[in-house]
This record gives sequence, structure tokens and C-alpha cells, in this order.
Amino acid sequence: MSSAQFTDFAQYKEQRAALINHDRSLRSDHSSEVSPSEAKADAIIRELRALENTTVWGSEHEGVPHPFPGMEFLTGRSIILKTKLFEMLAKMPKGGLLHAHLDATVNAEFVLKLALEQPALHVRAAKWLSALNVSNLLPEFKALPQEMFTNSEVGLTDPSYVSSTWVSLKTARESFDLALGGPEGFDKWVIGAMTINPSEAYQTHNTVNKIWEKFTSTFLVSNGLIRFQPVWEQYIYEFFRTSVEDGVSYVEVRINFYPKYMFGADGQEDIPHKKWLQMFDDAVNRLKADLKRQGREDEFIGAKIIYSTLRFITAEELEWYCEDCIALKQEFPHLIAGFDLVGPENVLKPLIYYAECLLRFRERQKELGVDIPFILHAGETLGDGTEADENLYDAILLGTLRIGHGFSLVKHPKLMEMCRERNILIEVCPISNEILRLTSSMLMHPLPIMMNNGLPVALCSDDPAMFGNMGLSFDFYQVLVASEVTGLIALRELARDSLKHSTLEPANKARAIRLWESRWNRFVDSIIAEAV
Amino acid sequence: MSSAQFTDFAQYKEQRAALINHDRSLRSDHSSEVSPSEAKADAIIRELRALENTTVWGSEHEGVPHPFPGMEFLTGRSIILKTKLFEMLAKMPKGGLLHAHLDATVNAEFVLKLALEQPALHVRAAKWLSALNVSNLLPEFKALPQEMFTNSEVGLTDPSYVSSTWVSLKTARESFDLALGGPEGFDKWVIGAMTINPSEAYQTHNTVNKIWEKFTSTFLVSNGLIRFQPVWEQYIYEFFRTSVEDGVSYVEVRINFYPKYMFGADGQEDIPHKKWLQMFDDAVNRLKADLKRQGREDEFIGAKIIYSTLRFITAEELEWYCEDCIALKQEFPHLIAGFDLVGPENVLKPLIYYAECLLRFRERQKELGVDIPFILHAGETLGDGTEADENLYDAILLGTLRIGHGFSLVKHPKLMEMCRERNILIEVCPISNEILRLTSSMLMHPLPIMMNNGLPVALCSDDPAMFGNMGLSFDFYQVLVASEVTGLIALRELARDSLKHSTLEPANKARAIRLWESRWNRFVDSIIAEAV
Repeated sequence: MSSAQFTDFAQYKEQRAALINHDRSLRSDHSSEVSPSEAKADAIIRELRALENTTVWGSEHEGVPHPFPGMEFLTGRSIILKTKLFEMLAKMPKGGLLHAHLDATVNAEFVLKLALEQPALHVRAAKWLSALNVSNLLPEFKALPQEMFTNSEVGLTDPSYVSSTWVSLKTARESFDLALGGPEGFDKWVIGAMTINPSEAYQTHNTVNKIWEKFTSTFLVSNGLIRFQPVWEQYIYEFFRTSVEDGVSYVEVRINFYPKYMFGADGQEDIPHKKWLQMFDDAVNRLKADLKRQGREDEFIGAKIIYSTLRFITAEELEWYCEDCIALKQEFPHLIAGFDLVGPENVLKPLIYYAECLLRFRERQKELGVDIPFILHAGETLGDGTEADENLYDAILLGTLRIGHGFSLVKHPKLMEMCRERNILIEVCPISNEILRLTSSMLMHPLPIMMNNGLPVALCSDDPAMFGNMGLSFDFYQVLVASEVTGLIALRELARDSLKHSTLEPANKARAIRLWESRWNRFVDSIIAEAV
Repeated sequence: MSSAQFTDFAQYKEQRAALINHDRSLRSDHSSEVSPSEAKADAIIRELRALENTTVWGSEHEGVPHPFPGMEFLTGRSIILKTKLFEMLAKMPKGGLLHAHLDATVNAEFVLKLALEQPALHVRAAKWLSALNVSNLLPEFKALPQEMFTNSEVGLTDPSYVSSTWVSLKTARESFDLALGGPEGFDKWVIGAMTINPSEAYQTHNTVNKIWEKFTSTFLVSNGLIRFQPVWEQYIYEFFRTSVEDGVSYVEVRINFYPKYMFGADGQEDIPHKKWLQMFDDAVNRLKADLKRQGREDEFIGAKIIYSTLRFITAEELEWYCEDCIALKQEFPHLIAGFDLVGPENVLKPLIYYAECLLRFRERQKELGVDIPFILHAGETLGDGTEADENLYDAILLGTLRIGHGFSLVKHPKLMEMCRERNILIEVCPISNEILRLTSSMLMHPLPIMMNNGLPVALCSDDPAMFGNMGLSFDFYQVLVASEVTGLIALRELARDSLKHSTLEPANKARAIRLWESRWNRFVDSIIAEAV
């Protein structure tokens, strides 16, 4: 097909169209059926995107020197909220959310509100807080047993505060120095410690390893509030509820089971994993009942748990967690969806370190007749040939059902082929990857490479409480505006794939997809209706 | 190959090694021969890289908040210069430089020095320069005929300066206000307008389109000095000379022939393209003679030109350039290597606009019995499915011999396959891509994807005068430190590919490769000798 072959320009254009077609033929949106309504809605969406590229993104926005579609999320978020396209996507039925860490799924303001209702919750700081140190010192939270409550009215900002002594949350908030903003200053201090802000992501911590340090600290802070039974129960419910409000109808969430207990209402750290699962099950059922009362039972299929522990434990310690996971699976077969090991891959232990133990784990499952697939994080890195990058080899060899992130997968031609052939879905977290500095904007994200190579992909929010990308609408938005190839049909395939590649049992999965499809058709119709 | 298949961990590890091997099997450094000396030198280089990751890159560096290997070049340059690894690479024989724009190949300080020796060269500004406006106003340079020289001593910083009047370069420099730094302030002002600095690339102009505006302005400024015969003759020689000093033994440089004439020594704009080629030929021969006198004739094979014009011309105008290019090829068959159209792809005309004319150009060549292969820029963009991205389809359909940049090629599975099968080399410009904000550091660059997919690649400097990456050592350094897979053998293949994919005539190419190989072997020995 060298240039010599063209007899005329018409023939050239024909071959060009054929080549583009061939190049895109592996994409899931390529040869799939498109209804006349979908074609119409797709055109509306594309036109709106082009329009807003000029009107919204081409305008001046205070404090944003370089606005562009797909830009750094924390800076661009307020502009996204001004678009009609985002408003539309907010109503889209998203399918399942397959990759999120439970401790990072509920809005920090809401968590603090829940916490303030709990007299057992206390806070401390390493020193009394002043204007000089408040931005450097972190709050530490803990539920205390009643006998340890203090009546002291000395707050954290009082110069007489004794370093690292516990103060009730209520006292700490109400006594917060007016010079530091009073109670609202307290809220700001706490929320700041539980979230990542633009100047951290894009300036002070602008490398993968530095932003991970801040990121890790947000978990340490928020865990003190969340891992307390009276908060946790409400927290899980709120996560499910807000997911449903965003059009997510099913959830597989990673829970970090590294701590063997959480705190109970009595301030004792003695609530075992088994009880966590009961609370989880209760929250699912409560939401289902509440939705049913509203005639919305079709909007929520349910939720499952990907059992996770952390990649700093020893292989010997891992054995305990594997046994624990099996025991939970035996008691709650409908809740345990899979197994994972989490944490920053660049600095923690590689999968190969755990591989022998993980192989035994699979053998043990066979003996016991349970099936807990691996759903492993791998390749969440910029490294090329580093241990974190090579985690991809292990994840695939270990038979992972899906890959969490797989950011560096696109460097590996053989692994790409294996994922396509074995139908291994990639849980892509666009906004997370950008805030954690793997890509500096959505335009550099490897997602188009995955899609054009025919890999199944689901978009995921990862840690929306820290990043501010609650639900999936923001991630879908970033993906849609960063590509001219991607349109409504690609979004449909991404949403449908999230259900197809879930661990739902066949009948349940079929039902989930059926319900999603009928919502999808209504969504398509609504795009057309609104545009008239 | 699911996890169930492993009978024991030894077998797992065996299959893992086989998989990694398979995954990397398309790489040019994979199954190529490695001498015992090369293996030893490779180990030395890898050890040094690991060591300096800690010692040099792990240290504090004033003014660099986040140093890391492969970081933003303009900020990291001074750190790179502290490494022993860079010192080694500076001595490496690089092969050919296949992608550079002539107007951007010689150090700006040197150009200014050449210019100051020319009484015909004049400068002007849109207003008299003061501390308030000096950073916003650009110098404009022009060679004037003697009758237009002025004796005025009024300089650019004099409040009585009449806007946009020409001042001799010497007067402008000597009269430059001491409050603005005096003559050195003048130099700084001029150099600043001819180069990109870190705060422009990483702050004020930190998007692809904004940095291109600054980038374009550097050409407009420097062209006034360079496109003047007495400067040009020395300029080309200096480009060749410094390339050779950096270990580059052959050059294919793009010259922008859009302006039909350059200025002669008499200040008349009447030097035609034919004369440009004579000067080019002369400079090649002068350097060859000079090197021969030094017993270094093996270090420089020669240089050719990729005829280029700009992507804003009309298809009708293109016809003139095609004919011009053919005429030059007929007169200087040994100098014209190929044809290209250049400029920012995101904003200028797409190749499809010119395709019909370009097909006729090839037909016309056949009629006349000349062969001027296309060597086209394509895919220098973050766009996905945009016109700039789709330029890749046209470049390949038009039969391009190599692809300039091909940054977005990795998104296209079919095009990747075609490049591999047709042996189309990608001219990768790592530092250029980063400074022009296609990637925020070398760690996010798609080069590993190209290499792992078996595409032939040559590293190129693109516009080193604007970027400060003179020679090829900096580009090789950035590539080497950004990957654990890449080692000495990969660098060898990159260098050799640059000669293999040149347009040198077969016998000359064989000689160039032979000479390069013997220098390579000496280089390898020197690494070992130094390490002892």
C-alpha cells in the first residue's frame, strides 16, 4: 500500500477511510450496534462538546491560567461544573463501580458531620495549634471508652493544651481559636487533612512519590473517624446512596482488612471482620428497602467486597489474611468478590514477593470448594521495567480477573494481547491517575491505547473522597472531552463492561445488565428530548 | 496459563521469566548479539545509573523542589551536568541526527556573537525599552543595505528612540541602558527571545498551544540573524562542528525553504535556494577538510537536507515548492534527502489537505526519474482522533520513509504494525516533546511503547538551540534514566538505526555503519577501562 498504488485521489480517500476503520476495529464501540436514537444522541453530545470547548473552556476563569478540556481535575473542577455536558453525564446510568477504596468514598464534610454527633470521638494534635503550625500539624482521631472522656474545656488552640492529649470533638471544634477561623477553621483544618488540594497536587507535592505521602496521610487521619462502628454503619450507607444518586447501580468496593478490629460504640477496638461484613450487608439491605419504598428498586443491584490487605505485610502475615478471607467467604459467599493487596506499588513489596503464598491460597480455595478470584492492583506506576511495572506479569500469571489501574500495561505488547484474549478488564481511574501525577492531564492518559487495542475497560473513581470526584460523572466527563474518537457509544460500552466484568452471579448479572439497558435507553431519549 | 497450571513455585518463576522474555521479544536490543565487553559495560552503566539515582538525584539542589531522573529538562539540566553518566554519554558515538530544524541548531550566544561581527545587521523594537516593557518586547533583526545604515547613536533604551526604527547591532548593544544590565542586559534580552526558559515552559506557557506561541516567536527573532549569508555560512559549519564534537557523524537536517530568498552580504534579500545548497555543500566540505587535517575524517560522513516548507501554505502554493525541490534535487542529487511540511500540527493544515498535490509530486518525480522520499512530521500532538493525530494515516499512506515525532502513533495498533512491517523509523525527540508539553517528564513519554513494539527509532534533538539540548547526549541521557529495561545495548541499537534508516546511498551507508561500529567498540572499551 505504498503511495505508488493510488491511481487517483478518490482511491486514496477510500483507502484512507478503510485504514482508519481497520485501525479502530478492535474498539468495543466499533462494530457494536447503534440504534437511530443513539446515533442522534451521539451527534448531540459531540456538538455540545465542540461548542463548550469554545464557549466554556475558551473563556477566562479566575485563578485558572490555562483552562482546557481534560485539564488537571482539581483546578478544572469548577469549570466542569459549568458545562451542560457534565449536567448530562450526571444523569447517565453508569453501570458498576469496580474500583474504589471504601475508606475514601464519602465526602469529607459529611464524615465530619457524622463524627460530630459521636461523643466518643476525640481528637488530638502533637502541639497546641497556632497560625504558625496549623497547616503542618495533622489531627488524630480516636473513639475513647466513656471512662476516658475528659471534662476539660482546654481546646487544641489553647496555649495551655498539653501536647497529644485527647479532646472531645465537640470541645475541640467549639473552642477553636477565632484567629484560626473558629469552628469553621476547625472544619477547614480537618477537611484539609482528609483531602488533596490543587496546590499540593500541582505544586508542593508534584511527583508520584510526594503526592502519595500526602495521600497516605489523608487515610491515616480519616480512618480515626470512619473505623468506628456508629460512624461506619452510616458511612457505608451514604457511599451506596450517593453512588446510586450518580447513576451507579452496583458496587465492588475494596475494604482494607489490615486492621483486625475497628472501634465499637463503647470505644473498645474489638469489632472483628465478621461484624464488618454484617454491617455492610445491613447497609445494602437498608438502601434496597429505602429505594423500594421510593419505587426505585431497579436503581441498585447491590454491593460486594474485594478483600484487601496492605503490601507491606510479610508473606507469613499474608497467610493469616488468606485464611481470614476464606472464612469470611464461607460465611458471606454473596459478599466476598475477590482478593487484592493494596498500597503504593513504587515503594511497597512487589507481587512476586507474595506469589508463592498466593498460589497456595488458590490451592487452599480449591480444597475447600470456594472461589475468591484475584482482582489485583498492578502497574500503577510510571516505571519501565521496575518492580511496580513487573507486577503486571504476576497479576496476569496469578490469573487476576481484572487489573486495578494497569497504567503501565500499554508498554507491554504481549500482556495487552493476553488481556484481550483472556478478557481481563482494566479498572481505569482517570482522575486518580492524574492527581497522583501519573499523567499531567487526561490528554496524556493511556486510556485511548487500551481502548484502541480492544481491552475491556471500566472507569473507576478510586478515592473520590480525597480527590473530589464523587460518583463516576467526573471521570466519564474527563474521558469524553479528551478524545474525538470517544463518543456516546464508547461511554455505553464502558458502562456495560463494568457490569459484564463484575463478579455478579450469572442470573443477577443478566438482570443488572437488562435493568441498565432500559435506563440507558431512557437516558438516550432524554438527551434527544432536551435538545429539541 | 491460569494460576491453576503451576505445580510449584519454581515452575511459576520459570514461566514468569519466559513471559517477560516474550513480552520484550520485539525490542531491537532483545535478541541482538552482545559481546562480553558490551555486557560488562552495560552492567557498569546500570550500576552507575542506580548509584546516581541516589547520590545525585537524591540530593538537594537549589531551586529544584522535586529532582528526579528524567525530570523536566530545563529545570533538571544543571543536575544532569553533575552526573558521571552524562559525561560518559557525551563520548558515545551517536550515529546520525535525523530530525533537527536548521534554524534551531546553533547555540543562541554563538549566533549573537557571529551577528555582532556584521555591520549590516540591525535591530529594532516596537517601542523604546524600559524596565517596564523589556520582558514583553521582542527584538527584530534585519540586514540592511549600506545606504540605509544610520549614524544615529540613539539606542533602543533611549526615551528618544523612535519606535520601530533600525539601530545597528553594535550601537544597540553598547548603548543598552545600564539600568537594564548594559551590554550584557542586551545579550540577555536577545538570548531570552531566542530560547525557551523554564518558567515559560513550566508556568506561564504550560500548555501545548501556548508554548508553541513562544516557540514560534523564537524562530521569528533568530531568523533575522541567521538568514543572512555571511552568518549562515558560519552557522551551518558550527552546527556540523558541534554535532561532530558530540559524537554525531552524519546529519539530515530540515531546512525551511518557505522564504524564497535570504539576505546577502549587501543587505539585499536576493540569495536563492540554489545558493543555499551551495553554501551547505561548502560547509560540509570545509568541515571534512578541517577534520582530515586533524586525522579525524572518520568522525563525519556528511550531511543532507530534508526540503521543508510550512503547513500554512495553500495546495496551489505547494506546487511551486514541489517543483523547486525537484530542481534542487536535480542539481544537488547528493544533498536533497527528502521532503516535509512543518509547523504546529494542532493549528495548521492537516496532511490530507495537501495529499492530492503530494501524490502528484511523487508522480512527477517518477516522470523525471528522481526520488525524493517523504519524511513527514505526523502525530506531534496529544489529540486523539484530531486532524493532527490523523496526519499519521496520511503520512503512512503517502509512503513516508520515516515519521517525524509520531508521538500519538502508540494509540494506533494497525499503524504500529504497519510501521514495524514496513520498517518505518520514528524520529523521536524526547526533550522537545517534553518542553513542548506533550509529556510532563520523560517518564510519561511513549518511547518505551514504541521500543517494546519493535519499531525502529532514532533519538533526535529537534530544536536544540531553543531547548538547550545541544548534540544528542541530553536526549540519550533522558531516555537512559527513564527506563530500567533500556541499557547500553538499546542505546547501541538506537544509534545504529539512525544510520540504517538514513537516506545515505548503500555503499556510503555501509561505510558509515562500519566506522560507527569501530568507534562504538572503542567507546565500550573506554567505559570498562575507566571503571577499573
